[in-house]
Order: sequence, then structure tokens, then C-alpha cells
Amino acid sequence: MKYCSSCGSLVDRLVPEGDNRERWVCPECKTVHYQNPLIVVGCIPELDGEILLCKRAIEPRHGYWTVPAGFMELNETIEEGAVRETREEACAEVEIGHLFAAVDVPQAGQLHLFFTAKLIGGHAAGEETLETAMYSFGNIPWDEIAFKSGHFALKKFLEDDGGNKGVHTHTIRP
Amino acid sequence: MKYCSSCGSLVDRLVPEGDNRERWVCPECKTVHYQNPLIVVGCIPELDGEILLCKRAIEPRHGYWTVPAGFMELNETIEEGAVRETREEACAEVEIGHLFAAVDVPQAGQLHLFFTAKLIGGHAAGEETLETAMYSFGNIPWDEIAFKSGHFALKKFLEDDGGNKGVHTHTIRP
Repeated sequence: MKYCSSCGSLVDRLVPEGDNRERWVCPECKTVHYQNPLIVVGCIPELDGEILLCKRAIEPRHGYWTVPAGFMELNETIEEGAVRETREEACAEVEIGHLFAAVDVPQAGQLHLFFTAKLIGGHAAGEETLETAMYSFGNIPWDEIAFKSGHFALKKFLEDDGGNKGVHTHTIRP
Repeated sequence: MKYCSSCGSLVDRLVPEGDNRERWVCPECKTVHYQNPLIVVGCIPELDGEILLCKRAIEPRHGYWTVPAGFMELNETIEEGAVRETREEACAEVEIGHLFAAVDVPQAGQLHLFFTAKLIGGHAAGEETLETAMYSFGNIPWDEIAFKSGHFALKKFLEDDGGNKGVHTHTIRP
């Protein structure tokens, strides 16, 4: 951040009065520009003992497999975000189950939330996906999973064995 | 948003190529300025059948009671955020238990996450708090609770009765 998005002035880096950490602050219009973590929402679409995975058509991790997930948007809930991402990446409809994994990625400024889900109908590659495929529980391509958070979620999904064992929290450090 | 925070040019509102919704985009440096929901993290500090609440010294809801909660910061986990907010608002230390409530507030662009917690030691009003107090489970000031999300979390906390029943999700609509 270099310029104030409200008035266009050059911003300063300082601790605002009454605050306890440095922020970008506009010396002209006095706006404090807070920067906060982003939410990634996804799900594990399951049907008859198989899981739907997507082979990424974009960087990072082009060519690796992922569960459907992406940045939550304004004006949607976390469940709606997980449904939308599954639609966009895998052209698939799901019925969301329960939230079962929350993975912090502090160095990226992200929180990744994963739901269980039931796949309804078919699937196909969306714009950001090379191909989609169903993998049986015993045949997950563990060495080709794109992200550590998705890897953690898949492991816990299998450990839970269909039950709601609460939310598994985890932090990914560099 | 009116000016590009990277180069100071006036931004446009348009759907970027390959995207499916309007964003603030800089016509000069081509930066897309995404806007996404914020995370609020909090906990319900409990000790011997009583819950620690804080009377708010700031707007919104000045003078109403709340569980310790606030915006998650960069470079912390959701648990660390809940611990920090409890320290700032109630001068209290807690041992975090499990995540038990996730409340979407789409019209505010927020997701509120609540943990169970054990209060360790004393408590006192922080800078944003008029006073702190312990309330027995049967004596919660329901009509003076500041926010609907905290109200939901308190209800579910009592319903769970100390067990981990998974995460209760809820959406607050206007």
C-alpha cells in the first residue's frame, strides 16, 4: 500500500492513537487502512466412498490435485462460498454437511475452512481446472495434493469416517 | 474505494477478464483490488459455572454486554486472536478449548468464530470495556447482550453443556 484509496494521498506507516500496532494511515483524510486475514472456503464432495478432486489449471501448484476451495466473497456465507467454489472449479452441485476443519496459514494471512459435502450429479473441469476425478478413500494421490491445508482436511475427513467429531484446527508454518 | 492504493490513479468498477463479478480495478497499473469478508474471533471464558462478560465502552452497542471478541489480525491464528482479544478487552488469560460456533453476518461482510475457553486468574476492564463481570449460567443478561452473534454463541455454549458437539453454524440476516 502506497496511496490512500479514499483521497489518493501518500500514506504513512504508524501506530494510530488508541491502537497497539502499525497501520497504513492517511495523513490528509485520517483514514486508517486495516489489513486483515482472508477466508478460503472449500468442501470435500463425497459419493459412495469416493471423493471429487480437481487438477489445477492455474498457479500456484498447476497440475496438482485439490479439493474445491477458494476465497470467500462479500455477500455470501461460508457454506454458500464452498458451494460456489465447487460449482466454479468442478461444475458440480453439493449438499453441504458440517464444518470439520479450520486451518490457519498465518504467513499467507489466510484461514482455510472445510466442510463435508455430498456430491449430487455429475462433475467436469471448470475454467481453473484441467480435469476432475473421483478417488476412492484408499486411493487418494497424497503426493500430488496441491496444498498442505487440503492434505490436512482430507486426512481428517477420512479419520472422522462420516461422523461429526467437531472441528479439527491446525496451523501451517513455513 | 476511489484511488488505487498501489499507484494513486482513479480506479474503475468493472468485471476483470476471467472473473465473474465487479471489482475495483486500476486502469493504469492494472491492479485488481479485491474486497473480502473479515474474521471476528472470540471466546466464552468459563470458570466454575460462570461466564466472563464485558460491558462495552465503545460504539456500536455502548453499555451492552459482550463476550470478548474482535477482528483477527495478520500474523496470528484464530486461537491466538481469541486469546489476544480476551486480554485486551477483559485483562484476562484463557486456555482455549474448541471452536463451537461460526456465525455469518453477510450484510456486514463478517464471519464470527467462537471458542470455548477456561478462565485463568482474574479479570478487569480493558480500554474498550466499562466493566467486566462473571455471570452464572442461569443469570445471563440476555436482553443486554450487544450482538446477535454473541447471543447465539452463548445459547449454544449452554446447550452443549461442556461437550464438543461440533460447530454450530448460523447466519444473521437484517
